[in-house]
Amino acid sequence: MKNDRFLRALLRQPVDRTPIWIMRQAGRYLPEYRETRSRAGSFMDLCTNPEFCCEVTLQPLERFDLDAAILFSDILTIPDAMGLGLYFEQGEGPRFENPVRNEKDVEMLPIPDPEDSLGYVMDAVRLIRRELDGRVPLIGFSGSPWTLATYMVEGGSSKDYRHVKGMLFDRPDLMHQVLDKLAASVTAYLNAQILAGAQAIMIFDTWGGVLTPRDYATFSLNYMQQIVSGLIRENEGRAVPVVLFTKGGGFWLDRMADTGCDALGVDWTMDLAHARQTVGDRVALQGNMDPSVLYASPDRIKQEVQTILESYGSGSGHVFNLGHGIHQFVDPDHVKVLVDAVHELSVPFHQEP
Amino acid sequence: MKNDRFLRALLRQPVDRTPIWIMRQAGRYLPEYRETRSRAGSFMDLCTNPEFCCEVTLQPLERFDLDAAILFSDILTIPDAMGLGLYFEQGEGPRFENPVRNEKDVEMLPIPDPEDSLGYVMDAVRLIRRELDGRVPLIGFSGSPWTLATYMVEGGSSKDYRHVKGMLFDRPDLMHQVLDKLAASVTAYLNAQILAGAQAIMIFDTWGGVLTPRDYATFSLNYMQQIVSGLIRENEGRAVPVVLFTKGGGFWLDRMADTGCDALGVDWTMDLAHARQTVGDRVALQGNMDPSVLYASPDRIKQEVQTILESYGSGSGHVFNLGHGIHQFVDPDHVKVLVDAVHELSVPFHQEP
Repeated sequence: MKNDRFLRALLRQPVDRTPIWIMRQAGRYLPEYRETRSRAGSFMDLCTNPEFCCEVTLQPLERFDLDAAILFSDILTIPDAMGLGLYFEQGEGPRFENPVRNEKDVEMLPIPDPEDSLGYVMDAVRLIRRELDGRVPLIGFSGSPWTLATYMVEGGSSKDYRHVKGMLFDRPDLMHQVLDKLAASVTAYLNAQILAGAQAIMIFDTWGGVLTPRDYATFSLNYMQQIVSGLIRENEGRAVPVVLFTKGGGFWLDRMADTGCDALGVDWTMDLAHARQTVGDRVALQGNMDPSVLYASPDRIKQEVQTILESYGSGSGHVFNLGHGIHQFVDPDHVKVLVDAVHELSVPFHQEP
Repeated sequence: MKNDRFLRALLRQPVDRTPIWIMRQAGRYLPEYRETRSRAGSFMDLCTNPEFCCEVTLQPLERFDLDAAILFSDILTIPDAMGLGLYFEQGEGPRFENPVRNEKDVEMLPIPDPEDSLGYVMDAVRLIRRELDGRVPLIGFSGSPWTLATYMVEGGSSKDYRHVKGMLFDRPDLMHQVLDKLAASVTAYLNAQILAGAQAIMIFDTWGGVLTPRDYATFSLNYMQQIVSGLIRENEGRAVPVVLFTKGGGFWLDRMADTGCDALGVDWTMDLAHARQTVGDRVALQGNMDPSVLYASPDRIKQEVQTILESYGSGSGHVFNLGHGIHQFVDPDHVKVLVDAVHELSVPFHQEP
């Protein structure tokens, strides 16, 4: 591999500079993405076509000196493969034709065979690896069981989580059945991605932060832990690091660090110095610039990069990223400023003392 | 006053049971509210009519054994009085005709005289106090300067805070000018509410939680502190307690407790035991049930009340509330279960040792 900075930092091995990638780096802020998207047809047409997936995955790497590629896909591929009928309504986000609401719905949920109903994802992984040709590592990913369950039970996005929290509070037995099936499905899905060529894994727990600390432990972290325990941790003679990210989960970093994962994503509501103090040398950290800083001027972006690098401090174990996905109206030139600033300004933090 | 449990708990004085009120207790989940709303005309017609405001403020007290009333109003009355042209678009939330974007916009912002352009709010406070006739205390409120600024600069609600964070990052001088004017306006507005009869004050910092810890201190907490320092703290021979609430601000309770306020609102992402340990005996705490628990069965609601009461523990200094506003599809009968459960189950926590 030509550039393995990202994998080394996740394992807290020495690096020459802090690696950076950007959540949703292949996305709507790039004109070339919008062009491919319009050629592809619907959003799901884009996600289910390995050639298009490969094309958009590589686009940001052509523009920016990023240290990792991330598989282009949607977090709702698993529920779709379970037969819930995923579709996207204009301006409304994802929807399911068949939400999961009662015992019969739960009982009928299959655990998808990833090489069968999700074969298009594995084909994309294999194609991207071939096209990447060892430039940078490829990240595979999935939503967390709790996050997938929120969409599956609500039937789409939600503000108050009426149905899924209704199930959690009144039918915890049923909720656990859903999450058990999802943990098994996610584990199989991620292991298939690893065998197809994914070199690091990220689990997005986008909605873990809407739970109480008690419910987070029981209904989200518990199932991420099961997945971490079931993942293939070495492939092609190299460790496959696992990153957990709970948006709004700053309070729970300590418990997340005990799952056996290699790194934690951190959003911008917590200083990295505080996060590093909390997790000690158990895990690496990934984050944590406020995505809206990319709306600011180049000088202000560089200043924020310096602040965040100083907050983490010296030594390996930091992967620079935003604290959440990049916003769609960001100027791509500002992303270049960010990526170059991280590489330039981080050199002093990796020099031998 | 017939029932001053709420004021006593905010001042950490002994009480017989834990008091409870509910954020947005006068709201759309009540059929009688929807009836008044439809008679009033637009939402702003409702907010600017003291008789209607009084009517809806008292509605939840007729149904439930609540320990406080809260003035019915909107948090955007101040920007409206500044001439920004508040209006509500169907399903889109609040909008401003004249958002604040540049130096000229900022320069032109007046500091409204509360008895003049916001006289309808003071009239409502006086009318509600008369109609309450000492049953329970009346809470006055305002949005925090930062929260008001987000709407004023964005021109409405926002997902990415593009404009307001753009100003914060690139023109902090301008941002501070806006916030200075807002802090002065909010202070005058809340003092006028106190003189009109509000017996406790709550400052809602709904969007402080979207900032980094550094920016929160500089652009939100700093201005709430200024307001706390400028408020009338005693009226009608009684202390007027002040509550600060930053949604998603659990990390910052320690610093918030040092502002000189009397109590902090806590959302449900933090255990009250942890919050109490953090703030010690500096302030009382208000919260923190997940609003979605009200979608669950009566038994489950009672169980959650018990858990939260135990989490806070024995002694005064706890006002029960939700961790955010009540959801609109909640069954009012479930609210009755909650209110009665708090009163019944909290007795043992207030007995002499």
